[in-house]
Amino acid sequence: MEIDLPEIVAEVTAAFERYEQALVSNNVGTLDAMFHDDARTVRYGVSENLYGHAEIKSFRKARSPVASGRKLSRTVITTYGRDVAATATLYERPSAPGRVGSQMQTWVRFPQGWRVVAAHVSLMDA
Amino acid sequence: MEIDLPEIVAEVTAAFERYEQALVSNNVGTLDAMFHDDARTVRYGVSENLYGHAEIKSFRKARSPVASGRKLSRTVITTYGRDVAATATLYERPSAPGRVGSQMQTWVRFPQGWRVVAAHVSLMDA
Repeated sequence: MEIDLPEIVAEVTAAFERYEQALVSNNVGTLDAMFHDDARTVRYGVSENLYGHAEIKSFRKARSPVASGRKLSRTVITTYGRDVAATATLYERPSAPGRVGSQMQTWVRFPQGWRVVAAHVSLMDA
Repeated sequence: MEIDLPEIVAEVTAAFERYEQALVSNNVGTLDAMFHDDARTVRYGVSENLYGHAEIKSFRKARSPVASGRKLSRTVITTYGRDVAATATLYERPSAPGRVGSQMQTWVRFPQGWRVVAAHVSLMDA
């Protein structure tokens, strides 16, 4: 199990940044596409626990674009072998002043590309 | 990338249950051993964001045993290939009535066994 092979870290970093860009611009199509389309994909959010890609997709569709202007810090992207990665980052956003968010994702490489198979987002008082 | 190979799911389920048992009995030694001993291991908690095994270990040591009596629900254990798994579960515990917790973990198989490389725990009003 080789950790942090440079070319794999580069791939996942690019995917991570594409996801972040889609999030802050509320590009729902890209966000949906970057979560693995499977009933086993899970996303735990600040006020919702979503099981399966269908629930995640419904949530995105209904959500107002809240993430604009968010700033990441202490981002860690770690790859395990060639096909799996864990990403962790803190964030702050103008709509939640004085609070720090945490976002964690598990990424897996499928034939169609890197996809998020599990994600967890929470918010705490700073 | 084969998902949910039965023998791998069985292995990770056993590791997951051993972790849960250690948590509810506050077996700090086992909890420390089950997190990958590496500076890149991350654990985001209800009120702390921990980077690296040393910070996680200090947190365990200082923590009072709060998890006793907790009950899991909607647990999903999904394996990707033979060496990686994502686990997600909700939980309730007597010390936080009326609130639902979410716990997500990424597990990787190392020569020494299955280890948690990333974990995120949060708590929301039910």
